[in-house]
Amino acid sequence: MTPDLQALVGQPVDAIDAPALVIDLDAMERNLYRMAEFARSRGIRLRPHAKMHKCAALARLQIEAGAVGLCVQKTAEAERLAGRGITDLFISNQVLAPAKLARVAALAQRLHAAGGRLAIAVDSGLGVERLAQAMAAAAAPIDVFVEIDVGQHRCGVVPGPAAVALVREVRRHPALHYAGLQAYHGSAQHQRGVQQRRETIEGVAADVTRVCALLRAEGIEPGLVSGAGTGTYALEAASGVFGELQAGSYLFMDADYARNEPDPAQPAFEQALFVKTQVISRSDDHAVCDAGHKSYAVDSGLPRVLGRELELTGASDEAGVLRGAALPALGETLWLVPGHCDPTVNLHDAMMGVRGGLTRGIVERIFRVDARGALT
Amino acid sequence: MTPDLQALVGQPVDAIDAPALVIDLDAMERNLYRMAEFARSRGIRLRPHAKMHKCAALARLQIEAGAVGLCVQKTAEAERLAGRGITDLFISNQVLAPAKLARVAALAQRLHAAGGRLAIAVDSGLGVERLAQAMAAAAAPIDVFVEIDVGQHRCGVVPGPAAVALVREVRRHPALHYAGLQAYHGSAQHQRGVQQRRETIEGVAADVTRVCALLRAEGIEPGLVSGAGTGTYALEAASGVFGELQAGSYLFMDADYARNEPDPAQPAFEQALFVKTQVISRSDDHAVCDAGHKSYAVDSGLPRVLGRELELTGASDEAGVLRGAALPALGETLWLVPGHCDPTVNLHDAMMGVRGGLTRGIVERIFRVDARGALT
Repeated sequence: MTPDLQALVGQPVDAIDAPALVIDLDAMERNLYRMAEFARSRGIRLRPHAKMHKCAALARLQIEAGAVGLCVQKTAEAERLAGRGITDLFISNQVLAPAKLARVAALAQRLHAAGGRLAIAVDSGLGVERLAQAMAAAAAPIDVFVEIDVGQHRCGVVPGPAAVALVREVRRHPALHYAGLQAYHGSAQHQRGVQQRRETIEGVAADVTRVCALLRAEGIEPGLVSGAGTGTYALEAASGVFGELQAGSYLFMDADYARNEPDPAQPAFEQALFVKTQVISRSDDHAVCDAGHKSYAVDSGLPRVLGRELELTGASDEAGVLRGAALPALGETLWLVPGHCDPTVNLHDAMMGVRGGLTRGIVERIFRVDARGALT
Repeated sequence: MTPDLQALVGQPVDAIDAPALVIDLDAMERNLYRMAEFARSRGIRLRPHAKMHKCAALARLQIEAGAVGLCVQKTAEAERLAGRGITDLFISNQVLAPAKLARVAALAQRLHAAGGRLAIAVDSGLGVERLAQAMAAAAAPIDVFVEIDVGQHRCGVVPGPAAVALVREVRRHPALHYAGLQAYHGSAQHQRGVQQRRETIEGVAADVTRVCALLRAEGIEPGLVSGAGTGTYALEAASGVFGELQAGSYLFMDADYARNEPDPAQPAFEQALFVKTQVISRSDDHAVCDAGHKSYAVDSGLPRVLGRELELTGASDEAGVLRGAALPALGETLWLVPGHCDPTVNLHDAMMGVRGGLTRGIVERIFRVDARGALT
């Protein structure tokens, strides 16, 4: 990886070669401690989602600040983070392939041997059965969360008797430890209005409450309820039914989250992730920078240009077209705020951590994107 | 990289872990030879664009089939391919940062020492001046192409006297070898109608012809004209003004190119690139597969589902939501046709090359995405 690092530790911001993913460490650390303090003050567990940064060093910072462990979305992400010393991991997703489940079992043993623990979500009888088969031979526990569909209509069982039936199936297998419910409403995170998000999370909490009541009616302790994201975490925390928050984006933030109406009940976070880019071409009516959609994800729209009356009006693989009243000069540096932090990080090998701001700061630490492209 | 390979050579298609990027080698080779034969029969040079596959082994196949070398879009891509033995490279883009230009000069020397050659595009006086400074100390030639804006309005100088002035500037520097014109119309590739594409490329050819005439009027030989893409290459070839084709996508193709009205004057290519994915969750009205927009680019729309009456109606980082009349079963394999091949390849560490089709084929060769994330 070294030949493609855009800077070395100790160099000034100016020396970072573009395009580069840059973290404002001061802003990031304020976000880190703000969320940690929120969770501590509410008495709720924080298990940040590592699919956002895919970085063991950042996971360690989160754990040192109080997180109980990390979530991941893929088995391969868990393996990469485990390989760099993160020992408490929750695969908050369904795993169905027997070859992957064998890796899950091996990972559970590895984490157990290191004094840690693996958790996983399930939402089908087939998933439970195959997981139990894989875990039967493993001399390690695994925490199993039954995922319920709380309104996003992606994964999860209907939050009613079907959820109770699946919990029963998990509890039938001695190799599986039923741990609780996974209840995440992804699209609620990006609903723009505060009122809209409140109503959605009220619905989420009602779904969770209903399943918990059905479980208790059958003498089953519901266990831990895990979920929530950066857009709504204070609402889940206040609901009284969630025991663990999975927010991830709060550490970096992005242009899409900035479009949300701020919720006064929820501590806000600062933009800490930027793409440094250089103007490489200039005509009378537009400029072109060297960062295209191979440098930032576009699933949540094009990046915003920081502090300039400029708009990115188009992006191709390796170029962004800029228009506006005050066009930048050839060679000038611009800073972009990515539309969506998670898939943007996944496009980079490394993140340059800068101390002292984007104008006169110094590269203090370079973070490797350890689980970049860990898809399986 | 090995731990994340989705299969080993010799395994059947069924054994490829999902999500995985899979090449149908039979289809790809037909595409490879079809384009090589087209260029040969028209007496035009073929220099495929490696920003698409970012893979030295595929570049070598293209050269063995008759390509004169490869294009790349970034200095770092050129370095990665040079490091794996590709010695004739054209950075068809602007490079302005002095630190990068020092690498360009080093690369020119390295390729020259290996019996090869480096070329680069320029579209500004500042770019020419800085390139000349960097090359002054290098004991190697560099071919310089003046990029003209033939209608895409991204990079390039206005195709008139400004282009001639820039050619003059290049020719003033003894360290630079003026080689010709870079004239690429990217958006023309995706214009849907044949007639529309024909009219656009007529305009491109008129721009090139005008600049060439202006150059000849001043006693300057215009040199090689390089450009074109998979959507229009036969039009540039037929124009009589282009000497080199830069098409890249033809090797793999994608769902966006499939939306173009086919041009009977242009040999067609087959879809050869697929994302293998597994259904990991299933409700009564939708299914969820394990490939989201971290497995395929979405800048040109969501992937198409191959051979099924199913639509991918939404994608998140690691999940795709499927709806349709005949929903797949839990655990089933689906094949997706990516919307845009270039940025999709850039999301993967490796591509599984399958011989014998997607149903009963065998993994014959695994291709590494050598220049994945080579952004600078």
